[in-house]
Amino acid sequence: MMLRSLWRSPAFSFSYYANLDLSCPYPSFQARDLTTTHTMHYITKPPCDPKIMTFGAFHTDHLLEIDWSEKMGWSRPQIVPFKSFSIHPFSACLHYAIECFEGAKAYRGPNNSIRTFRLNCNMYRMKQSAKRLSLPDFDGAELERCIEQLLKVDRDWIPDRQGFSCYIRPTLMATEEALGVRASSRAKLFVALCPVGPYFPSGLKPVRVFCNISTIRSAPGGVGGYKVAGNYAPTVLPLKEVQKIGFHQNLWMLPDGLVQEMGVCNLFFFWKNKQGERELVTPILDGTILPGILRDSILELTRSMGKFKVIEKKLYIQEVVEAIEDGRMIEMFGSGTAVSIQPIEAIGFNDKIYEVQYDSKLNAGELSHELFDILTKIQTGGEEHKWIKSI
Amino acid sequence: MMLRSLWRSPAFSFSYYANLDLSCPYPSFQARDLTTTHTMHYITKPPCDPKIMTFGAFHTDHLLEIDWSEKMGWSRPQIVPFKSFSIHPFSACLHYAIECFEGAKAYRGPNNSIRTFRLNCNMYRMKQSAKRLSLPDFDGAELERCIEQLLKVDRDWIPDRQGFSCYIRPTLMATEEALGVRASSRAKLFVALCPVGPYFPSGLKPVRVFCNISTIRSAPGGVGGYKVAGNYAPTVLPLKEVQKIGFHQNLWMLPDGLVQEMGVCNLFFFWKNKQGERELVTPILDGTILPGILRDSILELTRSMGKFKVIEKKLYIQEVVEAIEDGRMIEMFGSGTAVSIQPIEAIGFNDKIYEVQYDSKLNAGELSHELFDILTKIQTGGEEHKWIKSI
Repeated sequence: MMLRSLWRSPAFSFSYYANLDLSCPYPSFQARDLTTTHTMHYITKPPCDPKIMTFGAFHTDHLLEIDWSEKMGWSRPQIVPFKSFSIHPFSACLHYAIECFEGAKAYRGPNNSIRTFRLNCNMYRMKQSAKRLSLPDFDGAELERCIEQLLKVDRDWIPDRQGFSCYIRPTLMATEEALGVRASSRAKLFVALCPVGPYFPSGLKPVRVFCNISTIRSAPGGVGGYKVAGNYAPTVLPLKEVQKIGFHQNLWMLPDGLVQEMGVCNLFFFWKNKQGERELVTPILDGTILPGILRDSILELTRSMGKFKVIEKKLYIQEVVEAIEDGRMIEMFGSGTAVSIQPIEAIGFNDKIYEVQYDSKLNAGELSHELFDILTKIQTGGEEHKWIKSI
Repeated sequence: MMLRSLWRSPAFSFSYYANLDLSCPYPSFQARDLTTTHTMHYITKPPCDPKIMTFGAFHTDHLLEIDWSEKMGWSRPQIVPFKSFSIHPFSACLHYAIECFEGAKAYRGPNNSIRTFRLNCNMYRMKQSAKRLSLPDFDGAELERCIEQLLKVDRDWIPDRQGFSCYIRPTLMATEEALGVRASSRAKLFVALCPVGPYFPSGLKPVRVFCNISTIRSAPGGVGGYKVAGNYAPTVLPLKEVQKIGFHQNLWMLPDGLVQEMGVCNLFFFWKNKQGERELVTPILDGTILPGILRDSILELTRSMGKFKVIEKKLYIQEVVEAIEDGRMIEMFGSGTAVSIQPIEAIGFNDKIYEVQYDSKLNAGELSHELFDILTKIQTGGEEHKWIKSI
């Protein structure tokens, strides 16, 4: 009996999304069993105004709902009119945060088509999160098909305007109706949609991030590499605190300065190394940071460009600061589904503020701007691409 | 502007419950505004059988409910028939685990009285958890009064039998109906009750705990010192894993061996130190472990006994193992509201199992048994005590 190696937080390689095994070892729900109940009361759609159609503020007419119980397995998937859930006060999701979620986007394509961007990667990551919380596993390809049906039913909600999209929020939560910290014998999977405008009306907008050395988001052996609900609540107060002193987000690190991520974004640094070579550097997936799908896409895109070195490594804040002080830092940016590319103009660390110049016309550095453009074209440009599924 | 010390995880001293400031800087709900709607459909009570009346399985006829919104503040407290909640699919509690809870117990006393045990300490801790998650603060004394009313309304549910009690579960959750990681503009506080039998029908039962060196519960800078929902979900899978190899719980440590707590219990070690003196040792409240109310009670009780040293300190697993190997370990036990005292008979660490003898008649060591007896007498013995409020 090997006690020592019983359970280990996986050390993810950069090929997290290389082998997308979406299968499930036991019977999953099937998209062919999906039933749809159309709403009788269509909701008035908000105007396509970035100031009104903000992230997460509106939902569409329907949602997808699939229940699971230990005894009965998965129920048939149902698309139903958007509604509130009836949740027992003892539900495990309310007390022990046995719940995980995903964030993806769909876009309008030519001829009234709907384009999803790497939704299979979200399905894969959600399966990993579910397993980590002892929530039921499912066939990710089947869930993707069900989501495609939901997108079709709510097709009119997908904004037909540049920079706008339909955010997809799959959620899986424990609904055991008894107290006690243990694997839930019941669960609910649901998928809701919300129409969203561009994160910043101007397209890109550099932010100031604060290096938080007193609060951590995640540590080795924890669940920072999974998209589980409990990773988010502790970040709310530190965010409020840094916003009070003029920053937009926290940069999360370990106490020794190991750089992890910033609020809901993976991090990228584009610098000249000490040998004068240009490098794009991002923290390696060590199990403490979220394996971002846009992160993975940026790595592949920049590697295929072949213009500079692209490196995943253990990265320390001291290296970042030194590169800025030496004038070697070219650009800094974050990446995330909600924001796409997020240029960074300043880092606050140890009572100092380190600023990096950016092109004030582009509101970003050249590379950030180029990547934002490439990604936007892939997502909304109407052309075929291996990351796009047109439905 | 001091960037460095903007936010700091508090280093709790052992006097966590010494100054129970339960006040609230802004208007709180008031117990005098409480309204009660009695149920029309009384639920059949389960029999007082420890095998049936298990932890968290049954709820009483009513619950206490108080809503909050940024605009309106706290609503009037209401005792209503037990019911499920209608929860919007975008609710912040379901996605970001912005939710915290408490666990306390009430007991039957003489003349049909109800006895609560240090419920004011739970109120204090819940206020700290709420503030850490940017949930609304409240007057803890007012909540305690509301809970007392709920206990009176459901008085018949409090079992009148030795070893049985009424578990009190206050919960506070974010109900913002929009996606986005930020402080919630809406929240719901509710308190539910459940009748519970003794954790083990035999009173005490030693367990085997596994020193988990690959998975952590909490790290410095995290929220392990608060009773927030997100601390629990990640422990479910590691618990299943160790149960497969014959252990009952995980012992949580940091990678360097710093001992924290075991599954839902604080830890105590009663040993002879290298000078041959008897010591009761427990990990110090460093912000990574839960400030248990029973932990605090045991420290006060044993200090007042004056029979041996009582020490809170940074404790390493290597010291624990060495004491067992040297034959200096007298007893090991955990403490928690649900289980009271939890004797430990064995620790699995680094491929070895370290066992400690216990009195097989008592099913515990002498000190564990004595503490269990003292606490049980205070809680259910019918006598006045500063930790008991009789209502």
